[in-house]
Amino acid sequence: MKNTFGNNVSYTLFGESHGDEIGIVIDGLAPGIKIDTDFIRLQLDRRRPSGRISTSRTETDEFRIVSGIWNGRTTGTPICIIIPNTNKKSGDYSSLAVLPRPGHADYTAMCKYHGFQDYRGGGHFSGRLTAPLVAAGAIALSALSQKDIYIGTHIKSLAGINDRKFDNENLKRDIASLSKSTFPVLDQLSGEAMREEAEKAASEGDSVGGILETTVIGMPSGVGEPWFDSVESILAHALYSIPAVKGVAFGDGFDLANMRGSRANDAFVTDGRTVSTKTNHNGGINGGITNGMPIVFSVAIKPTPSIYCEQETVDLKLMENAKLKIEGRHDPTIVHRAAPVVDAVTAMVLCDILCGRYGTDYLS
Amino acid sequence: MKNTFGNNVSYTLFGESHGDEIGIVIDGLAPGIKIDTDFIRLQLDRRRPSGRISTSRTETDEFRIVSGIWNGRTTGTPICIIIPNTNKKSGDYSSLAVLPRPGHADYTAMCKYHGFQDYRGGGHFSGRLTAPLVAAGAIALSALSQKDIYIGTHIKSLAGINDRKFDNENLKRDIASLSKSTFPVLDQLSGEAMREEAEKAASEGDSVGGILETTVIGMPSGVGEPWFDSVESILAHALYSIPAVKGVAFGDGFDLANMRGSRANDAFVTDGRTVSTKTNHNGGINGGITNGMPIVFSVAIKPTPSIYCEQETVDLKLMENAKLKIEGRHDPTIVHRAAPVVDAVTAMVLCDILCGRYGTDYLS
Amino acid sequence: MKNTFGNNVSYTLFGESHGDEIGIVIDGLAPGIKIDTDFIRLQLDRRRPSGRISTSRTETDEFRIVSGIWNGRTTGTPICIIIPNTNKKSGDYSSLAVLPRPGHADYTAMCKYHGFQDYRGGGHFSGRLTAPLVAAGAIALSALSQKDIYIGTHIKSLAGINDRKFDNENLKRDIASLSKSTFPVLDQLSGEAMREEAEKAASEGDSVGGILETTVIGMPSGVGEPWFDSVESILAHALYSIPAVKGVAFGDGFDLANMRGSRANDAFVTDGRTVSTKTNHNGGINGGITNGMPIVFSVAIKPTPSIYCEQETVDLKLMENAKLKIEGRHDPTIVHRAAPVVDAVTAMVLCDILCGRYGTDYLS
Amino acid sequence: MKNTFGNNVSYTLFGESHGDEIGIVIDGLAPGIKIDTDFIRLQLDRRRPSGRISTSRTETDEFRIVSGIWNGRTTGTPICIIIPNTNKKSGDYSSLAVLPRPGHADYTAMCKYHGFQDYRGGGHFSGRLTAPLVAAGAIALSALSQKDIYIGTHIKSLAGINDRKFDNENLKRDIASLSKSTFPVLDQLSGEAMREEAEKAASEGDSVGGILETTVIGMPSGVGEPWFDSVESILAHALYSIPAVKGVAFGDGFDLANMRGSRANDAFVTDGRTVSTKTNHNGGINGGITNGMPIVFSVAIKPTPSIYCEQETVDLKLMENAKLKIEGRHDPTIVHRAAPVVDAVTAMVLCDILCGRYGTDYLS
Repeated sequence: MKNTFGNNVSYTLFGESHGDEIGIVIDGLAPGIKIDTDFIRLQLDRRRPSGRISTSRTETDEFRIVSGIWNGRTTGTPICIIIPNTNKKSGDYSSLAVLPRPGHADYTAMCKYHGFQDYRGGGHFSGRLTAPLVAAGAIALSALSQKDIYIGTHIKSLAGINDRKFDNENLKRDIASLSKSTFPVLDQLSGEAMREEAEKAASEGDSVGGILETTVIGMPSGVGEPWFDSVESILAHALYSIPAVKGVAFGDGFDLANMRGSRANDAFVTDGRTVSTKTNHNGGINGGITNGMPIVFSVAIKPTPSIYCEQETVDLKLMENAKLKIEGRHDPTIVHRAAPVVDAVTAMVLCDILCGRYGTDYLS
Repeated sequence: MKNTFGNNVSYTLFGESHGDEIGIVIDGLAPGIKIDTDFIRLQLDRRRPSGRISTSRTETDEFRIVSGIWNGRTTGTPICIIIPNTNKKSGDYSSLAVLPRPGHADYTAMCKYHGFQDYRGGGHFSGRLTAPLVAAGAIALSALSQKDIYIGTHIKSLAGINDRKFDNENLKRDIASLSKSTFPVLDQLSGEAMREEAEKAASEGDSVGGILETTVIGMPSGVGEPWFDSVESILAHALYSIPAVKGVAFGDGFDLANMRGSRANDAFVTDGRTVSTKTNHNGGINGGITNGMPIVFSVAIKPTPSIYCEQETVDLKLMENAKLKIEGRHDPTIVHRAAPVVDAVTAMVLCDILCGRYGTDYLS
Repeated sequence: MKNTFGNNVSYTLFGESHGDEIGIVIDGLAPGIKIDTDFIRLQLDRRRPSGRISTSRTETDEFRIVSGIWNGRTTGTPICIIIPNTNKKSGDYSSLAVLPRPGHADYTAMCKYHGFQDYRGGGHFSGRLTAPLVAAGAIALSALSQKDIYIGTHIKSLAGINDRKFDNENLKRDIASLSKSTFPVLDQLSGEAMREEAEKAASEGDSVGGILETTVIGMPSGVGEPWFDSVESILAHALYSIPAVKGVAFGDGFDLANMRGSRANDAFVTDGRTVSTKTNHNGGINGGITNGMPIVFSVAIKPTPSIYCEQETVDLKLMENAKLKIEGRHDPTIVHRAAPVVDAVTAMVLCDILCGRYGTDYLS
Repeated sequence: MKNTFGNNVSYTLFGESHGDEIGIVIDGLAPGIKIDTDFIRLQLDRRRPSGRISTSRTETDEFRIVSGIWNGRTTGTPICIIIPNTNKKSGDYSSLAVLPRPGHADYTAMCKYHGFQDYRGGGHFSGRLTAPLVAAGAIALSALSQKDIYIGTHIKSLAGINDRKFDNENLKRDIASLSKSTFPVLDQLSGEAMREEAEKAASEGDSVGGILETTVIGMPSGVGEPWFDSVESILAHALYSIPAVKGVAFGDGFDLANMRGSRANDAFVTDGRTVSTKTNHNGGINGGITNGMPIVFSVAIKPTPSIYCEQETVDLKLMENAKLKIEGRHDPTIVHRAAPVVDAVTAMVLCDILCGRYGTDYLS
């Protein structure tokens, strides 16, 4: 399995940046789930480039669902979502076959596919492929919301500027506010500062990265496996498919390395009926299994590799060192656009895990 | 699949801390690989508790290989390695069924297995299960060394004290020195300071965490998948099965989030024959696929949750808040002992990926 | 995994008989394989209803490949083939929700999908879904032919009338003649008799079944697994997905049950360079692994369940016994149309097995 | 995955005929299932050679469960069952490396494992490996019986002599009588005649084959997948792993090929509460999904390839044609001994399918 992910609910991704159509097949989702096309469109819009700090390329992201939906509900059989590539300009990319862009997959694609790969616009490696992920994720999010499971992602930091933390007393409200935003921050002032920093980099022909933080509320306890399918394992596996992700950490993540056990351990408490933990340094997961607390994780997004400054590369035809100046339309940052992708991938994974645990009708 | 990992070379783990025997089945490894039992023993010894900063429990880790090896070489059929549990004291753990230890899997195991789990010593969740992983990994390491692929892990930081960085000019030497060490650091003075810090925590009934950093040299370029089986995805999936791992990051990882693209991009250079990169911020992986540079990643290990200070928990029988004081034998840190486990898991994953890419005879 | 099959080369099927589009995603096929659209069309034409003994419904089977192909060759990334449903008449099928057709999946679909399934024309269970299988299989057949591996299927018997056996001295010629035929028999007179029998059944509002026999030449020896992925296991798994298949047998199959060992054993012989067997009762497979002889297997196809005679069924709304008379357009036999599907599925499976054995570039 | 089978409940097999120990790991079985060691022993005894028509080699099949069981019940974590090889005589088999036995896997093992395979007694291909399958199957059978699902297999025919058919009015009684028998037939007189025929073949240094027929009662309807994981697909996949199986057919199987649709279709009937079918030509499965009727299938077992008559083979060292006379201890038929293996494999598969459908606690 390569472009298919998931055991009980699975996702198969196909397409290239400059091919005719891209898409995804969602298999194993329970029958009877209501499809909200407006919500799918909303999520796709969140992913689309927009505003000053995104590429001026207009992606329309018209989608159609060609199977698996009938009378507005899932049938239980595979859902294929197709998104045509309407606004492609193949001329822009012709040099990529010879001069691989640093930080991109041009060179490794050549090593793997021996020159047969469609290298236009990054081909199958393109961030464009996250559009079908987001569409599939929107359906998964709808399915989860039936069970009162909600997912929200904010820009924890961008170019070194931090957002405020999640408000643990009002997580549902925080999530609701993020889920519609195209630049999802909890503190709008910080968001403004982030945008300024990204524009500044753009004006210098450069790009910036950042960290996303995600929380999931409503997950039942007792879900996951000790080996090798811990909730962390499965989520990290899927998240590391998102282009530009170079780090995934749960709970306090790398900060736990500097804590002592007495602080890192989350004490259990009860109100007589349910068990929870006083703190949540472990991000809702102990021993790979959910403990009923919010799942929390962070994802490091590297700065967009497409920059306008001159870069060093190799002319693969001549096997000589060369210079490269990338043209075309590029984002100075994709951190904000990666947020709905993280939401989507998280939702997809959780549908899979939950159906494995509770059966194929669980989300029905 | 739960306790089985890998597509082309796979690993199935079984056993509990206080059961009769624990073990692992390795399937799909090429025939004809020489088995070096001394090397397996060496790796097991690196994982074993030893010295002042490890539990005084003596684990002998005598292993036997009951299948898949004949005349000192792999046959190509499943290799089962069995390690008896000789030094178990079941009396120590009887309260775990009622008073779950914070930071442990006692509570989540109860949620998942409804009380039928063998909770003695953590049962199937126990760090003890990493012994068969290390034994299997030793075989995988031997297999990879035939192709001049080598793996080394050092303690990048422990309790906030940093080791020196890998010496990129002498990676093979650094790896060689680490691969025999029970406390693998590149700078021995830093190592001494780390140990002191761990002992200090121990003397206060507490524990410390740290970060491991791993490098792999010799991997061919063009291995991995864009979606969903990037090298990062597969490695992270496996690494997140190791108990206490809460973060996995590739290359400069979370630091990339604060870099600009002009710095994060690794420029390509050639000597006329081969292509490499000037820097290695991306840890040898672009677009999920190896580029021929060393693979580099970091793993955050949380402080050992077993501490001697009094902790708050819940009495699950009475559903009342309660206090807990853990007794028995525990490590104030397991960071150093996790290093051979990370080596092992990395070797296992790479055997799987390489055989998928180049066929089942590749490691023969 | 449900609608995805294969480990190293995999296939994901989607669509319903009366949905907008049906299709398949082929993943893992090597880069650089030439795509012969005429050959794909030829195979689709073989599967299409035609002539007197097929439904009068005209299926055009126009297909488009929306990804994974560039400049007429595979790129190595997922190939999505889409076939629009152009000639659907939804009105014909409205009663299926209430009166399940005997021998069909109407009732079991209801049990599984709780009424949300698209029941029109059999929905996702429809034989129509074999069109994308055949298209994908045509690409797989092309890939295999590069390695001189060829697959041929004939109607071994239909309504009790037997075709002649494969001519073991001229298997390649037999295969070539079958691979273009819409009613693939080795002896045309027998074929004529079969057709007459089918027409006779049709004139009585009934249908007939038959047995297909397939041979594969050119497979290397040493491919397959003893447990649980014998070549027989994988082929049978895939073949049993084809609608109406109720039996799969290898070599002499069920006849072996009545042989003695002295006859069933295939003696080994050598010409000094290669090893072959004098007979091929075991169908080219010993212990689940190819021995270099032709792979031979038979597939039993039950008579088309759609018949015009009145049948007994249950009114699922009233939970009362009821009568049913099926109208619409139906084949009195689908045995001949199943032949290219068996070819396709066999080719798909062998690509998967071969790439697992020899690596992802093997078919490049 | 090779020696691991199953998605939600999985089985990993290891060992060789003349290695130290053989065994199996069962993963994913629900916690809390009672383990009946007497029942496991009974099933192992049914598989063991015994009486006149089995090899005189005494296999003791002492087993031990080293993990996954605590206080007599499953814990929910992997169950490893180990069976030592006590009665092996390695001297018997030394020529197999050079003179492959016709009908055996000696030659194909050489092609696959290049001479590194443990060829003694068939090594990993040995029928001996079915002992751990039977032990695992006994646990699976126990788990299913909690849900009133029962499995029975009889010798439908041996050397051409037929047993009576299952009595559809008394299936549970038929199954109960078969499940304890070492020579499972429904009609004892037929059984006597079968044994005589097998002894006659034995006296002539030859062997005989036969057909097993299995029925499963109590399976809920709505279980299975249309593509590619039909119940037939999954069962056939697993059954084709059993050594000597060369045919698998469901319901009336190959006989359906000669029926007309009007006869092959199973009419639906209702008593006002439940739906059943008047006949069961389709073996309880429509469109790959259970319909609530008994699952029925047949398995063709070829005659034991180990015969005492002189056979032709190839001397692989000299690459010359040669003669072979097998010595040692061999069964003139293994059909009766394959019956408990078929029961076991069927039970294992059904546990997997049911847990996928209804969740991991279903069999708890």
